[in-house]
Amino acid sequence: MNGMFISQVDPMRHAIQMAEKAFFHNETPVGAVIVHKAHICVATSNNLESSFDPTGHAEMLAIRQACEILKTTHLVDCDLYVTLEPCVMCAQAISLAHIRRLYFGAYDPKGGGVEHGARFFTHPSCHHRPEVIGGLFEEKCGALLTRFFTKKRLGGML
Amino acid sequence: MNGMFISQVDPMRHAIQMAEKAFFHNETPVGAVIVHKAHICVATSNNLESSFDPTGHAEMLAIRQACEILKTTHLVDCDLYVTLEPCVMCAQAISLAHIRRLYFGAYDPKGGGVEHGARFFTHPSCHHRPEVIGGLFEEKCGALLTRFFTKKRLGGML
Repeated sequence: MNGMFISQVDPMRHAIQMAEKAFFHNETPVGAVIVHKAHICVATSNNLESSFDPTGHAEMLAIRQACEILKTTHLVDCDLYVTLEPCVMCAQAISLAHIRRLYFGAYDPKGGGVEHGARFFTHPSCHHRPEVIGGLFEEKCGALLTRFFTKKRLGGML
Repeated sequence: MNGMFISQVDPMRHAIQMAEKAFFHNETPVGAVIVHKAHICVATSNNLESSFDPTGHAEMLAIRQACEILKTTHLVDCDLYVTLEPCVMCAQAISLAHIRRLYFGAYDPKGGGVEHGARFFTHPSCHHRPEVIGGLFEEKCGALLTRFFTKKRLGGML
């Protein structure tokens, strides 16, 4: 994905495509994109089951890959787009990586750690807080997740 | 480390050795060990700077490596030993990986996420809570960290 020029709304559309890829591979449909200086640097999707990695959330994979590509632990010029509100594990990873802005799609009242639950960015132990913009393409991102969990409940019949 | 038989106190001693290894490589001295059925399965130390991974905490690396070795995302028969109270990112990773017991050394009032800060295991969004035993070899684990940060402040003169 490195080097691809983008418009302002493209990254979340791309993240949604990555979420659809996860759905296809029977993973919870969450996708993420990191933008570095108006270019998509990495695009990832949840990958827990096939890689035996319980921490394989799209955001974690995106942060690790972007740091590897840019040879840094501080993604100060980078914005993260993710289709679902990050959990608290990913929220702290975003903070540790010094991500500048976080855009997310669907809110996650049960598992989220940004606007719900532990609300990591509000804690004194959080030393870097990104700018947070939630609800981008919320309906589309949420519908994909609803469809996935309905399919799982019905035993894959959708 | 796979296949090494252990006594009851050996794993934390081994984790401390891994923390010393991190110190030697100029990383924050934290070490972790995962024990699976009375055998040390993996032993890791913090590895952020040299691998450009801001999420490279010893616990994260240990969980990912153990899951890869055991070909599972659920470390149900595994105990994690770590020299410092896990942060909230690692606490959620421990929960996601279904670690049975967490033993940690030094308490971390500033950055911890188990007994301090977000206290992840107390949240309703936490679906698996390990048994937690804190303060194992607390003084020795803490002294290593104090020595490391004193050395950093003094510009590597210790």
